[in-house]
Amino acid sequence: MIIAIKQGSPAKEVRRFAKSLEEKGVQVHFSEGASQTVLGLVGDTAEIDAEALNANHLVEKVVRVQEPYKRANRKFHPDDTCIRICASAGGECRVGGGFFSVIAGPCSVESREQILDIAESVKASGASFLRGGAFKPRTSPYSFQGLGADGLELLLEAKKQTGLPIVTEIMDLSQLHLFGDVDVIQVGARNMQNFTLLKELGRCGKPILLKRGLSATVNELLMSAEYVMAGGNENVILCERGIRTFETYTRNTLDVSAIPALQRQSHLPVVVDPSHAAGLSWMVETLSKAAVVAGADGLIVEVHNNPEKALSDGEQSLSPSAFTSLMRALKKYIEMEGKSFSNGK
Amino acid sequence: MIIAIKQGSPAKEVRRFAKSLEEKGVQVHFSEGASQTVLGLVGDTAEIDAEALNANHLVEKVVRVQEPYKRANRKFHPDDTCIRICASAGGECRVGGGFFSVIAGPCSVESREQILDIAESVKASGASFLRGGAFKPRTSPYSFQGLGADGLELLLEAKKQTGLPIVTEIMDLSQLHLFGDVDVIQVGARNMQNFTLLKELGRCGKPILLKRGLSATVNELLMSAEYVMAGGNENVILCERGIRTFETYTRNTLDVSAIPALQRQSHLPVVVDPSHAAGLSWMVETLSKAAVVAGADGLIVEVHNNPEKALSDGEQSLSPSAFTSLMRALKKYIEMEGKSFSNGK
Amino acid sequence: MIIAIKQGSPAKEVRRFAKSLEEKGVQVHFSEGASQTVLGLVGDTAEIDAEALNANHLVEKVVRVQEPYKRANRKFHPDDTCIRICASAGGECRVGGGFFSVIAGPCSVESREQILDIAESVKASGASFLRGGAFKPRTSPYSFQGLGADGLELLLEAKKQTGLPIVTEIMDLSQLHLFGDVDVIQVGARNMQNFTLLKELGRCGKPILLKRGLSATVNELLMSAEYVMAGGNENVILCERGIRTFETYTRNTLDVSAIPALQRQSHLPVVVDPSHAAGLSWMVETLSKAAVVAGADGLIVEVHNNPEKALSDGEQSLSPSAFTSLMRALKKYIEMEGKSFSNGK
Amino acid sequence: MIIAIKQGSPAKEVRRFAKSLEEKGVQVHFSEGASQTVLGLVGDTAEIDAEALNANHLVEKVVRVQEPYKRANRKFHPDDTCIRICASAGGECRVGGGFFSVIAGPCSVESREQILDIAESVKASGASFLRGGAFKPRTSPYSFQGLGADGLELLLEAKKQTGLPIVTEIMDLSQLHLFGDVDVIQVGARNMQNFTLLKELGRCGKPILLKRGLSATVNELLMSAEYVMAGGNENVILCERGIRTFETYTRNTLDVSAIPALQRQSHLPVVVDPSHAAGLSWMVETLSKAAVVAGADGLIVEVHNNPEKALSDGEQSLSPSAFTSLMRALKKYIEMEGKSFSNGK
Repeated sequence: MIIAIKQGSPAKEVRRFAKSLEEKGVQVHFSEGASQTVLGLVGDTAEIDAEALNANHLVEKVVRVQEPYKRANRKFHPDDTCIRICASAGGECRVGGGFFSVIAGPCSVESREQILDIAESVKASGASFLRGGAFKPRTSPYSFQGLGADGLELLLEAKKQTGLPIVTEIMDLSQLHLFGDVDVIQVGARNMQNFTLLKELGRCGKPILLKRGLSATVNELLMSAEYVMAGGNENVILCERGIRTFETYTRNTLDVSAIPALQRQSHLPVVVDPSHAAGLSWMVETLSKAAVVAGADGLIVEVHNNPEKALSDGEQSLSPSAFTSLMRALKKYIEMEGKSFSNGK
Repeated sequence: MIIAIKQGSPAKEVRRFAKSLEEKGVQVHFSEGASQTVLGLVGDTAEIDAEALNANHLVEKVVRVQEPYKRANRKFHPDDTCIRICASAGGECRVGGGFFSVIAGPCSVESREQILDIAESVKASGASFLRGGAFKPRTSPYSFQGLGADGLELLLEAKKQTGLPIVTEIMDLSQLHLFGDVDVIQVGARNMQNFTLLKELGRCGKPILLKRGLSATVNELLMSAEYVMAGGNENVILCERGIRTFETYTRNTLDVSAIPALQRQSHLPVVVDPSHAAGLSWMVETLSKAAVVAGADGLIVEVHNNPEKALSDGEQSLSPSAFTSLMRALKKYIEMEGKSFSNGK
Repeated sequence: MIIAIKQGSPAKEVRRFAKSLEEKGVQVHFSEGASQTVLGLVGDTAEIDAEALNANHLVEKVVRVQEPYKRANRKFHPDDTCIRICASAGGECRVGGGFFSVIAGPCSVESREQILDIAESVKASGASFLRGGAFKPRTSPYSFQGLGADGLELLLEAKKQTGLPIVTEIMDLSQLHLFGDVDVIQVGARNMQNFTLLKELGRCGKPILLKRGLSATVNELLMSAEYVMAGGNENVILCERGIRTFETYTRNTLDVSAIPALQRQSHLPVVVDPSHAAGLSWMVETLSKAAVVAGADGLIVEVHNNPEKALSDGEQSLSPSAFTSLMRALKKYIEMEGKSFSNGK
Repeated sequence: MIIAIKQGSPAKEVRRFAKSLEEKGVQVHFSEGASQTVLGLVGDTAEIDAEALNANHLVEKVVRVQEPYKRANRKFHPDDTCIRICASAGGECRVGGGFFSVIAGPCSVESREQILDIAESVKASGASFLRGGAFKPRTSPYSFQGLGADGLELLLEAKKQTGLPIVTEIMDLSQLHLFGDVDVIQVGARNMQNFTLLKELGRCGKPILLKRGLSATVNELLMSAEYVMAGGNENVILCERGIRTFETYTRNTLDVSAIPALQRQSHLPVVVDPSHAAGLSWMVETLSKAAVVAGADGLIVEVHNNPEKALSDGEQSLSPSAFTSLMRALKKYIEMEGKSFSNGK
């Protein structure tokens, strides 16, 4: 961290300020130029609050050179993290570290028949995980809010029947006791900075699929991952799902550059959600291919057995047959990236 | 709501589709032009999910004419809502309906001495409410996270000592049991779409100060208010606190137009947070004046007895003397707007 | 300017790099810490290209401490610039330096009758300048494109008749020869970074009204002003006209903070365009008041004698009577700011 | 186009309004529901100004069903446009319609030696076109502004020597007379809505490479293409070059979805600029692959023989050897898309 001191600041005060910084556990190096004094902070600056320093009347500018995250930082963990999740019959699904996973299923669990039907179908097409929302964040209180605990039960039944591990969203801490048999807990975009939730998930051992916030930066996503990891849970899967831009043709804008950016900065696996990114089912295959060649470690795709009748997100859901053809189309691209398909077998 | 039907759609299917809409409790009016069929939906369309309709293969475009919120909508409640909060000695603070309130205090409660000192000082300057964070949403897990339950205790002590009602942020449902003596519960920008929290707050009777999300629209803020109100709690105070834009000079960008926009669309009071909007203490007075003349019903201002040593947000906090001079400066503008200052006396 | 050097860079190469910087006319101060070498550049760093430095393999980060603009910078010109424009009968309109001006007129000049009618009317209400577009930037080639040179003629006729100096937009250098009798040349938001145009306007002596680009920052606006000023033309009026955000209720979002921000960074006058900012005529008065109390040096307001029939921007234009009442409403706010109304008398 | 009429509007006025619309050459269909009157406009609505209609006091909402562009619209030109440019020795470079082109070269032409050296090198690696800036839009007037007319001369010399057709940017109409031997004229992002320039380019027969504006939508880019095409020049190549978002890790954000979006809406070829999109040379290959599999018809890539010494954009330029390896890496992806490499042979 570099702190540029305001011109004309009394040397004595600057030294006192530097001393107060050293008390926070970093070393401070002075550079006193003719017209500019610069302090260089060395050591564990992640715990220094840059914003708080800005309030000091001696400070002209504070610049972080090192990233403010540690556990999520590739500098301190050069090897890719590979997250392993038990699948049926002793198998294992792996995310990251050279393995490619596809998480598929409906936006919302709507009925027993619907979720079992889709689960069988995405399994047959080669999905690694079943997704499905039981608790649904909807912008209108008058929209379908998900089946809640009953939805979770149905997901677990589908898991039992197909052997597919399940991924489903938690909306609030108060739901956590229901997630005991869930394999991967999803944190939605709107909760990316729900720090109370992140901290608590840091204490549970389960893998967390952390979605990027609607207007969050790569750095902010990694800081949210750091919250979970700081609590001791290193099993975080990052998810790029499109960001808010001025473009209205698509629901959001897939930030394909976030894939290499996240992977360079962090060792955590990165999956992509082409369904929410575009909001248009016809664009899912194109964006999936782009995500694979950009290095994604997996995809999370909405599949519905009757998109036109879906209670939510029908416009962006694939039919089972479109999903089958997507899986076929991706095969060669995944191989070209030198990745192995991981679906628990 | 207007639904444009795709050209060439079979008339029979369109009629079946219209019937399915009528089953949702609205009337459907047909307009069959030479080349364009348009359905006009009349009735309570707030409960119709426009996105879900878009997935239908017959639909070209869905356009809402009516707003999707009802309880927050001025059309159905033409008069301003005035929220009344008990103050000490039988007094009452009112927000909205011609009354102007100032909520002041530190970003974080840091110590007994600090909060009591600031509380006395803002009271003396004429503040209506004391604010202070006990639970703090911080982007880094290594930054100061607030004093938690102890912070709440200190706030309540300050309330007791000064008689100022208190406003403080809830970060998660699990904290709600601690908020029994809090006067106004604040929902932070990052929680604006924490729908589980909003629903539960809809069941508690307390006034809610709902902050606009970092990249949320006026319409989305009103939908979040609708969540609280749909649960039966009509005491919602809307808060414009700056939105994320490309400008980096200020921390956020105060959307001054949101004040008249919200007031035209809704009957709920609107307060402005110039401290978070700018992130610069020297700009707080200017933005406060702008907010008052634009029609704001109140302000929420960060005040710290030692901004340079503040554990958070020092850069944007006013000193007690700067706050006193702000209150003096605003007086005539508030009067020119025909509003009465409400501070519990 | 501060340059953080990558860890492990060979000292010899760093010295060679520092020497190459000194050849560009700045002094370089070294700070060699245990783990971080920092170069501090002192002198006229405005001409150092920070981006180009970033490409050097020794460089970790480049941070500007000084602003990259000089002529527009208040540091080097502490006093407000006041721009003087001749008005009829030997009068003078002043913009900035304690004077407040209102520029009013239609979006487009549509006919002789229209522009003369509006000119008389805004003059009677106290406007300082007449505005009107002859060359119109329209997003569709099929929309009305302005009357062009004929429109300019009509504006000049209105100037002659009313004595109001005129402000009108140039869209391209090729039109400049027609602007000989125009008093203030407007550069539209879409041309804020038309650097060829800015350079040429730097060579003409006329005052330039420079509008902020749709997603430009305060710093970028000042860099564009610097282009004009670097050519020798110091008569630049900055114009905040709303920026693009995710909000859709208003056409753009008025960045009211840009007024104090620009005035702190620069000595140039700042005017505000509430008509384009909101795109809603009913909001113009509210935003105008906010702009005045935030310190604006003037306003540019769309007025049309028949807004419903306007060939462009009817939705945001005031009728002549609404303009009259706006001028009355603003009077006391302008006085409270200690400014004098300047309208050439 | 659909116009929702405000409730309670007098039927007589609505009929008069409808008649005024019919005079503009469209048919108007009435739908009078119990509580909502809707007008459906049929015919060539591209020439109807939706914004102007909004100003009418009878109008609640105006919704375009048809796109406001015609010549750029795939609906009216179902087949892909393929643009043919003469290359040396009677060869031809084709852009679009199943052909893939790579445009490569430095950001700025800096010297005879530099441009000839790079031209030879990119030709050897298989580039279809040479790019190089003679007129450079720079945010600071103190940055290198390009060699101007001399730079163009050097480009033409490089064209003569290598046979590569050239692509270079025009910044202003006044430069057009110098572009007689340029093969493709580039319009930069900052000029995407320089309508005067676009109109004039519509009158010259040369292919235009039109870059998307920094915060422009897909629809706005197509409207700008329409400006060129409305003048009679159908040879427009669209270019996605990254949009402004809140992400700071990359210079801009590549909107990979814009490729399928533009291709679905329009028949014009779409090329991608991964260099400006990311601003990071190490990311160029990854984004190029993503662009190819998303369906791009070509790439425009910055290559410099000494990126560290480049006078502009060094940080994002590839070295000649990195470009060679990029071309090798892309080969199989282009083939998998069923496209032919077009480089004039």
